[in-house]
Amino acid sequence: MPKTIKQLKWRYAVKKFDANKKLSKTKLDRLKQAFNLTATSFGLQPIKMIVIKDKELKEKLLEHAFYQEQITTASHLLVLAIDTNFTVKNVDDYFDLEKQIRGTSEDIIGKFRKQLKDSIGSKTKEEIEQMAKNQAYIALGNLMTVCAYEKIDACPMEGFNPKKFDEILQLKEKNLQSVLLLPVGYRAEDDFMRKLKKVRKPVKDSVIEI
Amino acid sequence: MPKTIKQLKWRYAVKKFDANKKLSKTKLDRLKQAFNLTATSFGLQPIKMIVIKDKELKEKLLEHAFYQEQITTASHLLVLAIDTNFTVKNVDDYFDLEKQIRGTSEDIIGKFRKQLKDSIGSKTKEEIEQMAKNQAYIALGNLMTVCAYEKIDACPMEGFNPKKFDEILQLKEKNLQSVLLLPVGYRAEDDFMRKLKKVRKPVKDSVIEI
Repeated sequence: MPKTIKQLKWRYAVKKFDANKKLSKTKLDRLKQAFNLTATSFGLQPIKMIVIKDKELKEKLLEHAFYQEQITTASHLLVLAIDTNFTVKNVDDYFDLEKQIRGTSEDIIGKFRKQLKDSIGSKTKEEIEQMAKNQAYIALGNLMTVCAYEKIDACPMEGFNPKKFDEILQLKEKNLQSVLLLPVGYRAEDDFMRKLKKVRKPVKDSVIEI
Repeated sequence: MPKTIKQLKWRYAVKKFDANKKLSKTKLDRLKQAFNLTATSFGLQPIKMIVIKDKELKEKLLEHAFYQEQITTASHLLVLAIDTNFTVKNVDDYFDLEKQIRGTSEDIIGKFRKQLKDSIGSKTKEEIEQMAKNQAYIALGNLMTVCAYEKIDACPMEGFNPKKFDEILQLKEKNLQSVLLLPVGYRAEDDFMRKLKKVRKPVKDSVIEI
């Protein structure tokens, strides 16, 4: 079996992590870099990742994620958040960064800068937030697959109270809003899910070839 | 550099594909399987992937994707679509599939079946569609990363006319609605983007450690 398929089959939404097994700094750095390398719409990166290691902090969050114990037993809790103050200023920042990294001149960039600023400037706050949320889901898809290849266990979660998380993590002050959780670590020996077969439709019911 | 980071840096949104380089059946099968293995909310898989190889069909679609030539020069065009007729029936199908694959008894499944049917049953059509769209973005994130590891080039696209795509691909009749495009293939030697440095914020501006 090719490694890609083997690893995607190996992964599952872990129910119980081994609380004693921690991610190495190397592995954690890899996830941080992988998150930052996520492809986002026009490269704008309207998302951030919060990494939580502190036991007490995770315990405070637990009740606001329906007491799902992955929050506290995971080595690290990753919180994907959107930038709630995303404006044309961020588009300017992007193009300034592009100039700095690629040395492209304003002559070439100028037209695109204007187009994208007009486009973002014409969107409502709700539309921009939806755009940012979509990117958070792309990041989640990227991170889960990277975890699979890196043999890191994870459990994606939408079920939690974002307002309480934002309060406890003081995200509002940073113009951030939590959207998705991804506890990461290593599956416990006695996680009842680890021996279960994956439930997926046959590929022929999921893919249409024209 | 670890392979994960190397490959995520290698990938970029290809502007020009080599129209003569086609994905092998092995590689295409791998993408189909990878799509089907995408993690979705509660495992419900409310999404489908349409694979288009036919040249004439891709040419018909071109104008409805702002004439972005990746549509026609890519080896295959992947269209991610949501199921527009997703109901409690699909939840039943999921649990029936779980019983079949895992041999779990209704005694154990029953409670979860009811909970999830109640939850899906209480959602509006718009909420269900948004849920399905979120899963399409997860699939996009998964597929882009799988492509990177498999050294397949790709170009994620949100900019196209879904109504026209649905019409030409006869998706409405299948209760599907196109959401995202991912042309896949191999970068052209003269794609001006291939030599450009990746533009990303420093990791420290993208990740917050608490």
